[in-house]
Amino acid sequence: MSSIWGNKLKLSIFGESHGETIGVVIDNLPPGIKLDLEYINKQMLRRAPGKNKLSTTRNESDLPKILSGYFNGKTTGAPLCAVIFNEDSHSNDYNILKDNMRPGHSDYPAYVKYQGFNDYRGGGHFSGRITAPLLFAGAVSMQILQKYKNIHIGSRIKSVYDVEDDAQLVNVNENSLNSLKNMDFPVLTLEKSEKMQSAILNAKENLDSVGGIVETFIINVEAGYGEPFFDSVESRLSHMIFSIPAVKGIEFGEGFNICNMKGSTANDPYYVENEKVLAKSNNNGGIIGGITNGMPIIFRTAIKPTPSISKLQNTVNILNMENSSIQIKGRNDPCIVQRALPVIEGAAALTLLDLILEREGELLWNN
Amino acid sequence: MSSIWGNKLKLSIFGESHGETIGVVIDNLPPGIKLDLEYINKQMLRRAPGKNKLSTTRNESDLPKILSGYFNGKTTGAPLCAVIFNEDSHSNDYNILKDNMRPGHSDYPAYVKYQGFNDYRGGGHFSGRITAPLLFAGAVSMQILQKYKNIHIGSRIKSVYDVEDDAQLVNVNENSLNSLKNMDFPVLTLEKSEKMQSAILNAKENLDSVGGIVETFIINVEAGYGEPFFDSVESRLSHMIFSIPAVKGIEFGEGFNICNMKGSTANDPYYVENEKVLAKSNNNGGIIGGITNGMPIIFRTAIKPTPSISKLQNTVNILNMENSSIQIKGRNDPCIVQRALPVIEGAAALTLLDLILEREGELLWNN
Amino acid sequence: MSSIWGNKLKLSIFGESHGETIGVVIDNLPPGIKLDLEYINKQMLRRAPGKNKLSTTRNESDLPKILSGYFNGKTTGAPLCAVIFNEDSHSNDYNILKDNMRPGHSDYPAYVKYQGFNDYRGGGHFSGRITAPLLFAGAVSMQILQKYKNIHIGSRIKSVYDVEDDAQLVNVNENSLNSLKNMDFPVLTLEKSEKMQSAILNAKENLDSVGGIVETFIINVEAGYGEPFFDSVESRLSHMIFSIPAVKGIEFGEGFNICNMKGSTANDPYYVENEKVLAKSNNNGGIIGGITNGMPIIFRTAIKPTPSISKLQNTVNILNMENSSIQIKGRNDPCIVQRALPVIEGAAALTLLDLILEREGELLWNN
Amino acid sequence: MSSIWGNKLKLSIFGESHGETIGVVIDNLPPGIKLDLEYINKQMLRRAPGKNKLSTTRNESDLPKILSGYFNGKTTGAPLCAVIFNEDSHSNDYNILKDNMRPGHSDYPAYVKYQGFNDYRGGGHFSGRITAPLLFAGAVSMQILQKYKNIHIGSRIKSVYDVEDDAQLVNVNENSLNSLKNMDFPVLTLEKSEKMQSAILNAKENLDSVGGIVETFIINVEAGYGEPFFDSVESRLSHMIFSIPAVKGIEFGEGFNICNMKGSTANDPYYVENEKVLAKSNNNGGIIGGITNGMPIIFRTAIKPTPSISKLQNTVNILNMENSSIQIKGRNDPCIVQRALPVIEGAAALTLLDLILEREGELLWNN
Repeated sequence: MSSIWGNKLKLSIFGESHGETIGVVIDNLPPGIKLDLEYINKQMLRRAPGKNKLSTTRNESDLPKILSGYFNGKTTGAPLCAVIFNEDSHSNDYNILKDNMRPGHSDYPAYVKYQGFNDYRGGGHFSGRITAPLLFAGAVSMQILQKYKNIHIGSRIKSVYDVEDDAQLVNVNENSLNSLKNMDFPVLTLEKSEKMQSAILNAKENLDSVGGIVETFIINVEAGYGEPFFDSVESRLSHMIFSIPAVKGIEFGEGFNICNMKGSTANDPYYVENEKVLAKSNNNGGIIGGITNGMPIIFRTAIKPTPSISKLQNTVNILNMENSSIQIKGRNDPCIVQRALPVIEGAAALTLLDLILEREGELLWNN
Repeated sequence: MSSIWGNKLKLSIFGESHGETIGVVIDNLPPGIKLDLEYINKQMLRRAPGKNKLSTTRNESDLPKILSGYFNGKTTGAPLCAVIFNEDSHSNDYNILKDNMRPGHSDYPAYVKYQGFNDYRGGGHFSGRITAPLLFAGAVSMQILQKYKNIHIGSRIKSVYDVEDDAQLVNVNENSLNSLKNMDFPVLTLEKSEKMQSAILNAKENLDSVGGIVETFIINVEAGYGEPFFDSVESRLSHMIFSIPAVKGIEFGEGFNICNMKGSTANDPYYVENEKVLAKSNNNGGIIGGITNGMPIIFRTAIKPTPSISKLQNTVNILNMENSSIQIKGRNDPCIVQRALPVIEGAAALTLLDLILEREGELLWNN
Repeated sequence: MSSIWGNKLKLSIFGESHGETIGVVIDNLPPGIKLDLEYINKQMLRRAPGKNKLSTTRNESDLPKILSGYFNGKTTGAPLCAVIFNEDSHSNDYNILKDNMRPGHSDYPAYVKYQGFNDYRGGGHFSGRITAPLLFAGAVSMQILQKYKNIHIGSRIKSVYDVEDDAQLVNVNENSLNSLKNMDFPVLTLEKSEKMQSAILNAKENLDSVGGIVETFIINVEAGYGEPFFDSVESRLSHMIFSIPAVKGIEFGEGFNICNMKGSTANDPYYVENEKVLAKSNNNGGIIGGITNGMPIIFRTAIKPTPSISKLQNTVNILNMENSSIQIKGRNDPCIVQRALPVIEGAAALTLLDLILEREGELLWNN
Repeated sequence: MSSIWGNKLKLSIFGESHGETIGVVIDNLPPGIKLDLEYINKQMLRRAPGKNKLSTTRNESDLPKILSGYFNGKTTGAPLCAVIFNEDSHSNDYNILKDNMRPGHSDYPAYVKYQGFNDYRGGGHFSGRITAPLLFAGAVSMQILQKYKNIHIGSRIKSVYDVEDDAQLVNVNENSLNSLKNMDFPVLTLEKSEKMQSAILNAKENLDSVGGIVETFIINVEAGYGEPFFDSVESRLSHMIFSIPAVKGIEFGEGFNICNMKGSTANDPYYVENEKVLAKSNNNGGIIGGITNGMPIIFRTAIKPTPSISKLQNTVNILNMENSSIQIKGRNDPCIVQRALPVIEGAAALTLLDLILEREGELLWNN
């Protein structure tokens, strides 16, 4: 399936870190959707590099240009293609990487998979940069979900390196999620936020990197989406989230922690309120038997430390098939947790819109 | 996609817990594969209920009958359909469940999704029982992987409730994986095994249930399988593993723990040995950039406590839309971790065979 | 994709001509659909063999048994599996075919594709007999289309061998289509019908076979289904119709004949009547730009003479790789046009239901 | 599925006739393929408009620009995106079409499908112009088939309007197919060629249009590709060919004419020559039971008269829902048969490459 995704809503992403253009084709968008380009660009800026000293100094505006499927300010229903131009790539920085496989990076498995013909510059098609068009498609989906379904998605950084924010988001609602979305570095506890940022800067200083955990909340998803087996909502969301480079784990609701509960605690008891079925707890994170149950969908994503570090590392030279070492000179992110966060939200939005379009078809929109 | 799975190798599973038959159609199996039915039945028995007091007393032999795609002891290349007859279903036990939604179970979201027309008896198509045909297909795949690719898959129980086995599987090889496969309750440390079983029996006595974590190892997968984005090996494996009822989390390699490492530690440095590229550590669990790197694939699966418990629970009566309570009288598993374990292995085998068939096509087999 | 079909509604068919059972799993049927089993069986009988001297003497009742997805007389929304038992297979008739490839049959390409491991008895999975479960699924779809969409499908035999019925179906409506459905040998002109049947019996007497053309009409399909390119309605219908063994051509509306028209004639001019857009002619057969335009969908299917004939034929012995000859002793159909006709209708019904479910989703049903 | 196609090789096409850019993303191309851009451009020019008085005067160079998946003159294995800029669109010509539905065109069904939001200018995404990126992808596939499989594809115009060329292509081989490919107007009989061109010019003079039949030959496809049912080679090819605008019929081998044969004639008898299985006739057009049998694949495609004509036509004004009339002032093709011909070849090449990649995987290339 390569770089194509989706059951009903479909994406085809393309491009390389140091090519001319990266982009995405979104297929099966409902027609007549007015796009708020300002909102989309704002989402793009949340991920864009070069904003502050917590991220790479590569400077990209990352503003998308729509090539098709958009007419008189609205989607037409035909494939919507958008491209983002690469403006600030320094390919020479990467020449040494051609044969020396960066540990923790796709270089070696990509070399084997593509038999040495892959574009190695900056990781080529494997670059985290390819999440920019993914986020564009996610932002389009997000505004459709908001407008037509009142579904909102927000995330907070739960941990960076050894700094964990134990606080819980008590009121999961549109306001609290919007507040998180408006923060550059969305952490619930200010003190923890500062400690996390220190951990990142400290890693940077030491030519090293750190990772962390993002917690994502999706509200107002009705009960009944998903499938009992191969298309459980967890299957669909995890499939998509693991497409984001550097993700190594995902858990829903209480996740791994639910294994420490007894069934009598883990089960979320239902009750009726205002003729609606609700649950008193949400240990299952809004998904039971693969299907949404109307409670907020909650999941946590583990993001590994950026593999690109400037420290000297042992590796192999694949051309000579001999041991070697490498020091990566590119402009690296000491931590990508905060830049991956909006991408996770966008990826979740795409997955939900796909699930909804499958269930509800093409006709209940643009009214 | 409902109950159909796969890119190249495809499954269609069907059946209900209290229907006559459950089964699976496997599409695109290579032709000319001699099936070792004894091996397959042995795998089925690992999951079958009624074996001991750790599981439900429902007594099912669970031996599959092959209806098509199999001729003169070998696969033909045409769809292979196998069915398993339900022999010991007590549907009356479940009458009360028709309107009272079991907490933690699919009952309520299934009611909404299927608008009340779903077969509610024993969970219907949502039942864990439907993993029997999945395991059948997995066992077929597993023996193909073993014979043609020398790929082996094994698992151990890492935790049950509050009992965790901190021991590591030091030598991950064919022998150690086979040893685990031959254990009824595969735990590395005997003392922990006994404590885990006590925790299960204790839960049973208290009309409650427990969950746990399974760790799975896959060896001898060559580098180069998978895709950079939407079909990363993690995406494909997690998609399949989350199809197994009760799974709430998955992590690869060091998983969530990798967030506590620095990049310089998390990165697995390569070296050359006997003209082969190897890695000194395996924090990434054999998958980097979505592609296998030749190291063992390692992942952990979180399985929640069985939602079916005999304790009184609060819930709703969906017909009357009012609060109610429920006491489940069916023959429940106090823990399904040990029965889910072979299903996880089978699901992983299916995913790998699918990846391999996609990459290598239909022609490199049966020689 | 092998023996799996569909975008939203999905089929998995399985079985062999001389195996124990043939069958189908239908995935994503809407829940709550009351099945009229009598109607379905009536459709099955239209295709069943052994009815009269125009078809094979193999005697099969062909009545399906539903194994799953059906509860209290209604679909549940879970996969519906139905099987048909093979009751009257004479496998010994086919022993000589193991190595001698029947001309016009799948034997040789199947031998190459499956490397000699395919079940050769009666053509195995390639047998026309596998259209029985396809017709079952089609009959289920047909009654859904009738009940919820007032869509009706009927066909007539336009030609058999050198006998062509030039008459046109003037009034294409529910009544005329039902009349055709109730005829054993649906031909518009009685005299032509008798001549066609004579041609079949004549071929039978001469140990030979004949083919013919089926014309199919689908009414009350609203405008707006289909896609501009790869999922044009013609693409979808032709894909499905060419799945039926022995089909060698398909044309929509005036089809090949439209090439003899000028644009000014071929174009179907629109007009408004009762606030509805209609067309004065229907040279495009209800599909323009890949999308339905609200006019009846009309297509013709070319069915080749049954390849199984009892005349001596030259061929090769694949084991010895030498020229040989063959005389097929099985119970052959001198013509399968009349038995293929209900299968074409069923296949068209499946395709339309898939298109409708994609566009309208799962929610507009069972009310 | 909208504008995405393929099982293993995948396409996503995008763009509108009067947008800025049209293009295609090709997914899963094998890595390391050296592209002969001159060959590709030559194929593009066969389809390009404005070449002579037989086609529209819209002047487009139609030369593609590759944006991704191409590095150091070779494919990388990552998605290859190519765009073609629209240079000579006169959108004002089409203003009147906004509300007046052109007969024979997609305007009305597209209006319904997209609820009035489609880009109507020049037919938008429905325009025949979108076959330019399709041809680009086809030309890439064609050179892969030629280089690695020695498969060649060529076509001839069999008829235009009432002029039919009864001559047969006696020697179907690389030379004869190349000769056809080098002709601007590939007809076997010179006299017929001139008559066909006269018929086109005559239609043009009368503000009318004509259609015709293209016959396509594919040689050196080995036996064994395809599937018995839903992915028969006929299913796959017809699905793709009906994606090309204006196609109304397809037939394989003798096609509709095979219905006039007896089985004893229609069956193609096998014989052995040089240890290879061959057939004495090819009435089945190289495909039996859905699978290739090693003989040339032959099919004919019916192309309707261009619906865009400058004659006054009756139609409806969709905004006012009233009868109206229309005279199309755009720069129309009096016949698109000769321009569709290379697109048919490209579409066939894509389909074959997809079938081959599915069967043979990703590993047997670039050596």
